[in-house]
Amino acid sequence: MAASPVSDATLDSFAACAEAMADAAAAVIKPYFRAPFDLVIKGDLTPVTAADRAAEQAMRKVLAERFPDHGVLGEEYGQERADAPFQWVLDPIDGTKAFVTGRPIFGSLIALLHEGVPLLGHISQPVLGERWLGLRGRRTLHRPGCAGGAAVARTRACESLAVAQLSATAPEMFPPADLARFRRVAGRVRQLTWGGDCYQFALLALGHIDVVIETTHKIWDWAALGPVVEGAGGCFTDWQGRALRPGAPGEVLGVGDPARLDEVVALLNAA
Amino acid sequence: MAASPVSDATLDSFAACAEAMADAAAAVIKPYFRAPFDLVIKGDLTPVTAADRAAEQAMRKVLAERFPDHGVLGEEYGQERADAPFQWVLDPIDGTKAFVTGRPIFGSLIALLHEGVPLLGHISQPVLGERWLGLRGRRTLHRPGCAGGAAVARTRACESLAVAQLSATAPEMFPPADLARFRRVAGRVRQLTWGGDCYQFALLALGHIDVVIETTHKIWDWAALGPVVEGAGGCFTDWQGRALRPGAPGEVLGVGDPARLDEVVALLNAA
Repeated sequence: MAASPVSDATLDSFAACAEAMADAAAAVIKPYFRAPFDLVIKGDLTPVTAADRAAEQAMRKVLAERFPDHGVLGEEYGQERADAPFQWVLDPIDGTKAFVTGRPIFGSLIALLHEGVPLLGHISQPVLGERWLGLRGRRTLHRPGCAGGAAVARTRACESLAVAQLSATAPEMFPPADLARFRRVAGRVRQLTWGGDCYQFALLALGHIDVVIETTHKIWDWAALGPVVEGAGGCFTDWQGRALRPGAPGEVLGVGDPARLDEVVALLNAA
Repeated sequence: MAASPVSDATLDSFAACAEAMADAAAAVIKPYFRAPFDLVIKGDLTPVTAADRAAEQAMRKVLAERFPDHGVLGEEYGQERADAPFQWVLDPIDGTKAFVTGRPIFGSLIALLHEGVPLLGHISQPVLGERWLGLRGRRTLHRPGCAGGAAVARTRACESLAVAQLSATAPEMFPPADLARFRRVAGRVRQLTWGGDCYQFALLALGHIDVVIETTHKIWDWAALGPVVEGAGGCFTDWQGRALRPGAPGEVLGVGDPARLDEVVALLNAA
C-alpha cells in the first residue's frame, strides 16, 4: 500500500467527514426506499432522481461546513472548485435499478482524491447500515450494520480461476465487443452472479467474491471503490491492469487475490 | 382468491408452523452467511450444502412435532408420506449464488399444498429477518425485519409494459430458445434487472417489480411463491398463463397487475 500524503490526524478528519456525509445521505435516502411511488415522485422527478438530488445536497452541506476549500464533483450538481488539490467525488445512489426495485444492495459512494489519486473511499448501504471505509495506507474497515462494530475487511486467496466467484451488474451494460471479452473470463470461473453495482466490490473486499468486471463506469462510480478494495488486499484496475485515474475510460476490474490479476487481464485482452 | 379448504383456526396453525420452521432454518443459516469458508466447510460439503442440509433437518423436526401425519418434500432429503393430502415443500436456501457471494437477497421457502394445490407460501430472508406469508383466501403479509410489525403486501398497478420493471435471476438460466422468448418481453419494458431468485417475487408482492420471468424451476423453487404473489393481488402462472401444479415444467411467471398478464403471455408465445 502506498503511503498517505497527509498526517494520520488529517486522514482521520477526512474519514469522519465521509461518515458524516454518509449519515446525511442515508437520512435522505431511507424514506424513499420502497416508498409507494405516488408519495415520492415530486413534480416530474423519478424517485431515484429526487432521492439522488436531495442526498447529494445533504452531502455537499456537510462538506462545506468541514472543508469549504475542497473541490467536489457529483453526478447531479456537477463540479465546484475544480483546481483544489483535494477533490471529493460523490454518487448518492450507485445501483439505481436495485434501488427502484427494492433490493437493498445499492450504495452511496464517497471518494476523496488528492492530486488525482484516490486517498479515501467510502461505501454505505443506507438501508442495512452497512459501511466500508478505505484509506490509503490503512486496512479497509467494514461495519456490518447499524448496531455492529467495525472490523478489518480482507479479500480471500483464490488459488485458481477455476474456483473463482465472478460478478458483474448486468450483461446489457457491456458493449458487444466487451461482452465477448467478459465471456472469456466467465468461461473460466466456477460461478457467475449478476447484480450489485458497488456492493459487488464491497463483497469482494470481504472475501465473498473473487473477480468483479464492469464497464461504462463514470468517475463517481469507481473513485470510491479502489481504496476499499486495495485496503482489503485486492487489486483495483482498468482492464489492462493499470491504476484508474480521472479521465480513464470506464473499464473497471476488481480482483481479490493479486496472484490472479495477470491471468484475468490476459483473458480480457486475448486476441 | 379461492376459499381455503380448511378452517381459519387450522390455517392459523399451519401459518404458525411455517413461522417456526423459518425460525429454525434462520438459526441454522445465519452463522454460515459470510462466514470464512474454512470455518464452514465440513468434510467435502460446500457451505451451501452444509447449511441447506442442516436447515432442512431443522425444519423437518419442527414439522414432525406439529403435523406428524403430513407429507414433506425437500431438496436435500426427498419425499416422506407421499400419499398424505397435506404436503409441505421446502427449499432451505433458494438463491445459492446470492448466499455464497454474501448478497442478503436469497430466501428460505416453505409451501404447503393440499391435494396438489398451494395453500400456504412463506418466504424468509434469514439475515434481514424479512418475511412474507401468503395463505389462500387471505391477504399476503410482509414483516420488514426482525423488529418490524407485519403489514399487508400489495402489488402495484402497471398501466403499460412500457413502464414496467422486469426481473429475472440470470440469462444463463434460460435455454437459448426460452431466452429469445424472454427477450421479447424485455424489449417492451422500461427496465430489466438481474438477480434475486425468490426475493424478486417477494418484491413483486410489495409493488416494486411488475414482472418476473424464470425457468427451470423445481417444485421447491416455485411452490411457496404463488400464495405470496396471489394474496398480494398479482398473478402467478406458467408461461401459458396457467396455474402451476406439481409436475409442471419449470416455466414460472409473476405479474403484479393482472391486467398485464395476457400481454406478457402473448409476447412469450409469439410465433
